[in-house]
Amino acid sequence: MYELGVVYRNIERAHSETADGLAKFGSATVHEAMGRVGLLKPYMRPIYAGAQVSGTAVTVLLHPGDNWMMHVVAEQIRPGDIVVAACTAENTDGFFGDLLATSFKARGARALVIDAGCRDVKTLTEMGFPVWSRAISSKGTVKATLGSVNIPVVCAGALVHPGDVVVADDDGVVIVPRAMAKQTLEAAAAREANEGAKREKLASGVLGLDMYKMREPLEKAGLRYID
Amino acid sequence: MYELGVVYRNIERAHSETADGLAKFGSATVHEAMGRVGLLKPYMRPIYAGAQVSGTAVTVLLHPGDNWMMHVVAEQIRPGDIVVAACTAENTDGFFGDLLATSFKARGARALVIDAGCRDVKTLTEMGFPVWSRAISSKGTVKATLGSVNIPVVCAGALVHPGDVVVADDDGVVIVPRAMAKQTLEAAAAREANEGAKREKLASGVLGLDMYKMREPLEKAGLRYID
Amino acid sequence: MYELGVVYRNIERAHSETADGLAKFGSATVHEAMGRVGLLKPYMRPIYAGAQVSGTAVTVLLHPGDNWMMHVVAEQIRPGDIVVAACTAENTDGFFGDLLATSFKARGARALVIDAGCRDVKTLTEMGFPVWSRAISSKGTVKATLGSVNIPVVCAGALVHPGDVVVADDDGVVIVPRAMAKQTLEAAAAREANEGAKREKLASGVLGLDMYKMREPLEKAGLRYID
Amino acid sequence: MYELGVVYRNIERAHSETADGLAKFGSATVHEAMGRVGLLKPYMRPIYAGAQVSGTAVTVLLHPGDNWMMHVVAEQIRPGDIVVAACTAENTDGFFGDLLATSFKARGARALVIDAGCRDVKTLTEMGFPVWSRAISSKGTVKATLGSVNIPVVCAGALVHPGDVVVADDDGVVIVPRAMAKQTLEAAAAREANEGAKREKLASGVLGLDMYKMREPLEKAGLRYID
Amino acid sequence: MYELGVVYRNIERAHSETADGLAKFGSATVHEAMGRVGLLKPYMRPIYAGAQVSGTAVTVLLHPGDNWMMHVVAEQIRPGDIVVAACTAENTDGFFGDLLATSFKARGARALVIDAGCRDVKTLTEMGFPVWSRAISSKGTVKATLGSVNIPVVCAGALVHPGDVVVADDDGVVIVPRAMAKQTLEAAAAREANEGAKREKLASGVLGLDMYKMREPLEKAGLRYID
Amino acid sequence: MYELGVVYRNIERAHSETADGLAKFGSATVHEAMGRVGLLKPYMRPIYAGAQVSGTAVTVLLHPGDNWMMHVVAEQIRPGDIVVAACTAENTDGFFGDLLATSFKARGARALVIDAGCRDVKTLTEMGFPVWSRAISSKGTVKATLGSVNIPVVCAGALVHPGDVVVADDDGVVIVPRAMAKQTLEAAAAREANEGAKREKLASGVLGLDMYKMREPLEKAGLRYID
Repeated sequence: MYELGVVYRNIERAHSETADGLAKFGSATVHEAMGRVGLLKPYMRPIYAGAQVSGTAVTVLLHPGDNWMMHVVAEQIRPGDIVVAACTAENTDGFFGDLLATSFKARGARALVIDAGCRDVKTLTEMGFPVWSRAISSKGTVKATLGSVNIPVVCAGALVHPGDVVVADDDGVVIVPRAMAKQTLEAAAAREANEGAKREKLASGVLGLDMYKMREPLEKAGLRYID
Repeated sequence: MYELGVVYRNIERAHSETADGLAKFGSATVHEAMGRVGLLKPYMRPIYAGAQVSGTAVTVLLHPGDNWMMHVVAEQIRPGDIVVAACTAENTDGFFGDLLATSFKARGARALVIDAGCRDVKTLTEMGFPVWSRAISSKGTVKATLGSVNIPVVCAGALVHPGDVVVADDDGVVIVPRAMAKQTLEAAAAREANEGAKREKLASGVLGLDMYKMREPLEKAGLRYID
Repeated sequence: MYELGVVYRNIERAHSETADGLAKFGSATVHEAMGRVGLLKPYMRPIYAGAQVSGTAVTVLLHPGDNWMMHVVAEQIRPGDIVVAACTAENTDGFFGDLLATSFKARGARALVIDAGCRDVKTLTEMGFPVWSRAISSKGTVKATLGSVNIPVVCAGALVHPGDVVVADDDGVVIVPRAMAKQTLEAAAAREANEGAKREKLASGVLGLDMYKMREPLEKAGLRYID
Repeated sequence: MYELGVVYRNIERAHSETADGLAKFGSATVHEAMGRVGLLKPYMRPIYAGAQVSGTAVTVLLHPGDNWMMHVVAEQIRPGDIVVAACTAENTDGFFGDLLATSFKARGARALVIDAGCRDVKTLTEMGFPVWSRAISSKGTVKATLGSVNIPVVCAGALVHPGDVVVADDDGVVIVPRAMAKQTLEAAAAREANEGAKREKLASGVLGLDMYKMREPLEKAGLRYID
Repeated sequence: MYELGVVYRNIERAHSETADGLAKFGSATVHEAMGRVGLLKPYMRPIYAGAQVSGTAVTVLLHPGDNWMMHVVAEQIRPGDIVVAACTAENTDGFFGDLLATSFKARGARALVIDAGCRDVKTLTEMGFPVWSRAISSKGTVKATLGSVNIPVVCAGALVHPGDVVVADDDGVVIVPRAMAKQTLEAAAAREANEGAKREKLASGVLGLDMYKMREPLEKAGLRYID
Repeated sequence: MYELGVVYRNIERAHSETADGLAKFGSATVHEAMGRVGLLKPYMRPIYAGAQVSGTAVTVLLHPGDNWMMHVVAEQIRPGDIVVAACTAENTDGFFGDLLATSFKARGARALVIDAGCRDVKTLTEMGFPVWSRAISSKGTVKATLGSVNIPVVCAGALVHPGDVVVADDDGVVIVPRAMAKQTLEAAAAREANEGAKREKLASGVLGLDMYKMREPLEKAGLRYID
C-alpha cells in the first residue's frame, strides 16, 4: 500500500552493469525475455523519437496538479537512475519542464517516465533528455500536497519498485524487477543471438511458417486452404 | 460474415497499373474521388511521417493478443500487395515487428495496415517499411488461435475485400473497391488537374468565396455581415 | 451565447507589437504569466514539431462535417492573425487542407488552431503553415450549413474572443485576452528573466529544494525521511 | 463501397419466423452460434436495461450532425424491422428523439441501433422503444446532406446488409447475415439446450475444470500448482 | 480570463420564474429553442435516471484533486440555484459526496453539475439530490489550493456565467444565458405547443417526409429511389 | 513480476471478520481511512446499481480474449472470496457470464472484479451476483493460453495481493492490503462515527467553512471576497 509523506533514502539498486546492459536490447526483447510481462501501457510515448535507455528506478508518487515531490525526488537521484513518476489520479498537467530536467540531468538522471504530462518538449529535445509521458501539456502545477519518494508505485499499469531496472525506447517502457535483472539480461542476449540468423533466412524468402515449423500445428488446429 | 480458419489462396487483385497509379494522389484526393467514402478511422496513424503508398489488399483476421495468422498471411503476399489486418476485438498488442517486416518485404509487400499494435518501429523506420496502426506497443503475442486470410474484413471501420486497392499516407488510409479502382483513378486525376490552377488563384489572394461562387448561396442561407 | 449565421467584420485586435512579442516566450511561460489559465486541452497537437507562433485571433464556429465557414473566415483574416476554429460537436473530419492553407497564407494568417481535423499535412509541413488540431484525417466535408465568424467561441475547453492573442508551440496553445495582453507580455518577460540564473544554478547541482527554500515547508507539511 | 444519395426500396429480408426466433437467445449465444463473430463494438449501449429484441435490418447512412435521412428511412420500415444507422464520421449528436420514435413505431419498427447519439431517452423509455447508441445527447441536427438507405453499411465495426437479422440485448448487438439466419437459429437452440444441464452441474459445485475436462490440456500446456 | 482566488458575492441571477419555468421543457427542447447551442459535452451524465431540473447558476472553478472551493461556494448558494463546477484540468476525483450534498441542499441548491467526479452516489440517489458529472469515483480530494467562485467558467465545453439558467435532464445539460432566458422560455413553449399535434400525426402513420414537406428538397438534392 | 502458468493454492487471507466488516463502510470511506489510496480506476463500474460487498481477494491473470484461467481460479475460491481478474493487455471481451457465475457462486464467491468485459448481465442481475468491470460485451473468448492464479496483479491501476480485502460499491472498488485490514476497519469506523453529527450540523444550515474552521486558512491563502 502507498505510504504518503515519506522519502526512502536508501534503496537497493540493481547492479549497474546489468542495468546499463539492458538498454541495447530494447523494450520488446526485454519484455519477451521476462516471459512477456512488465510493460507500461502503450499510451506512454516518448517526447521525441530515437531515444533508447536503461537505468535504475527511483520512484515518486504525485498528487494530480501538484509537482512538489518532483523537487524532493531530485535529491535522491544518483548517476544512472531513471525517475519513474506515478500519480494518485489520472492527470495530464505539465509536471516537468526544462528547469527540472536541468536539475535531474545534473544529478545524473538518464530519463523520466511519468504517468502524467510534460512540457518544454522542444528544449528537452535539444537537451537530449528523454521523457516518456502520457501527455504533453503547458499546464503548470502547484506545490501544496505531499506524495512519497522511493515507495513501490503502479505507473501506467506496471508495478515499479525503487531499484528495479527501467528499459525504454520508441516501442514503450518495461520494468525489470531487480532480482530478475541478471537472468533477464542473459535471456535477452540469448534471444537476440538467434535473431540475426532468423532475419537472414526471412530476408531470403524463407517463410516463418517453415522456419518455425507452424504448418503442422496450423493444420491440427483446423486451418483450411481454399483455392 | 467472417469465416474462421480459412485461407483463400486465389484472390482477384485490382489491376496493378491502377493500383500503383493511385499512390501519388494520396488518401484525401482518392476518397474525395470516390464520393467521400472508404476511409479508415483517423486513429490509424503512420509509424513515421512521409510514406505514401498504394497496393492491392491481402487481408487477415486476427484474434486479440495472437499473431499466428500473420505468418500465414505472409505466404499469400505477392509483390505490390499491402497487408490489411483486422482483429476480432480492440487490441493494441505488438503483432508485428522487424522479423515479420523482413519476411513481408521479401515477399514483396509494400506496407502493413493493422487495426492493432506494432513494435520495433525504429528498425521498421530504418528499413523503410511503412505501417499504419492504432498503436505502438512492445507487447508480444501468442500463437494459439486461428483467424482467416483473404476474407472480407472490417478494419478500423472500413470494409476491405481482398484485392481492393489500399492508398495510405500521412493523412490516413482509404480503401478503393477493386471494381471502382479504374474510375477512381480517373476521377482522382481529373480532380488533381484542377488543383494547380486553384492553388495559384488562391495564392494570388483570390478568395474561395469568389472562386467557388459561394457568396450568393451563403446569402440565401441567411448569412449576415455586421460591421 | 452563440449567434449563428453572422460575420463580425470589425473586431478590435490586441496591439500587434504585443501580440507578436508573446511568441518567443512559448505557451507554458505565457500561461504561467497569466496565473496558470487560458490553455486549450492537451489533445490539441501541432501537425509538425518546432513551430512557435503568436498572433491575433479571428474565430469561426463550424458545424460537424461542414467547412463552409472556413471560406467565409478567410476573407476576415488580416496579416498577423491566427484562425481559431471551434465546432458545435466533437468531430475529427479534415476541414482544412493545402488549398485553404494557400488562401489563409495569402491573406496573412500565421496559423490555424482547430478543434477538429486537418489534412494534407505533408504539404502543409512543406509550406511551413502550422496547424494545431485534435486530429489528422483525410475525411472531406460538405458546404451546407451556416456557422459564424468572429463571435466568442469555446475551442478545446478555452474561451476565445476575436482579437485575443493566441500563443502556440510544441507544448500546446494558450489564449491571452486582449485586455491582458500587455501585462502578460511584461509578466512573461519578468518570468523569463529569472530563468537563466535558475537554470545555471540547477545545472551546477544546486537542488530546487534549496533554491526555492522548500525544505522547511515540506517538513511542516510532515515529510519524513527514512534511511 | 458506399453509394450516396440512393434509397433501395426492395430488399430481401431474412424470413420473419427466423428473425423473430433469435431474440430469445440473446446476443451472446447468437454470436457464439455463428462462430464468435458479428458483434458491434461494446461502446454501443442500450438506453435502458432489460430490452431484448430481434428483427430485420433496414440500414441508413448518415452525415455527421445531419438526420435528414432518418426521415427517409422511416418510409422503408416494415413491421418487424430494426433500423441500423451508420455515420460517415464519428459523431455523438442526438439524431433521434421521441417524434421519430413515434413515427418508427407507427411503421412497425422494433428498435433503433445507431452509431451516434440519441435523445429524449426518458420518453423513449416510457414508450418502450429501445435504442442502442454510442451516446446520449440533446444536441440537435440539421437536414442538409444526403446519405443512403438500404445499402450495406459498417456500423460500430460490424458489416450490416439490409435484410440481415439484428439481435440486441443488455450485452450488446449482433448481426446475423440473412443467408446464415436459419442455421444460426438452430445452432443457438442447440447451444442453449445444453446450458440448463451445465448450469445445474455447476450450481451443485462441479467445476468447469472437470465438466469441460480441462485438467489434462492445462497440464499439457504447463500449468503448475504450488502449495 | 479566469481570476483566481476571488469570490463574487453579488451576482445577478436570471428571474426565478423564468429559471424555474424552463425545467419542464428539458435540455433538448431548450437548446433547440436557443438555436441549437449552449450544451455541455455528452460525457456529462446524471448519477441516476429521471431527474429533470432547472435553476440559476452559481459557478466554481476547482483545481484537480482539490475540493476546497466546494465549501466556499456552498455559502454563496441561494434557494433555486444549481452549482456549476469547472476544473482547471481534466480530473475524475470524487469532489462531492453526501456531506456536501447535505450542505448544498440545506442552502437551497437543486443540483450540481460538475466537470469532474462525484461519490456517495447511492446516498445522493436516496436523498434525491441530482448530480451531472463526468465520472463517479471514490477518490478523495485535498483542501490546499484556491480557485474562484462566481466567475465565468468553461464547464464541459460550455461557457457559463453566474446567474445563467441551467437546464438538466437525462439527455444532458444546457446553459441559457441570463439575458436570453425569457425569450428562450417563450420559444421553448412555442416549440412544445406544436409537438403534440406532430406526435399524433406521426403516430397515425403520417411520415415526416410528408409532414415536413421534405420530398421536394430531397429530390432536388438528388435523392434517387431504386426498386 | 508476473509468473505465468502457476496456481498458488495456499494463500493467507485477511481475517474473515475484518474482511466482512469493511463492506458496510463503502469504498469511499475505506479508501479515506487508508490515507486516500488503494482505489481501482473509475472506469470500473458495477453491472447493476446498489451492490455493496467486501471479501478476500483471489487473483487471476488473463490473456486478452482468453478465459481459460477463469475456470482454474474457480477451484481456488473459498466462501467469502471476491475474484480479482487482471489482463495482460487492455481488452473488453466478455470473459464471464452466467455459467461461470453459477460456478463461482456455488464455490462461495461474493463478486467478481475484472479489468475486462462481462456478459449475461441481465441474468447476473437476476442472480444477484455483482460484477465490477471495464465493459459489458457479448464477445466470447477462447481457452488456449495460460495465465496464473493467486499471484500479485495490477488490476485497473491498483496492486492486489491474494488475500487482500476488496471493498466495492456504486462508487468504485478499493483494495485493503491484508496487513492493514484491521487498522483500516478501525479507522473507517472512527471516521464514520463522526459523520452523523457532521451531517446533522450541515443539514441544519451550518457551513463547512465554519464547521471545519476553513475561513482563516482560506484568508491566509489569499481568498478575496468581492461585493
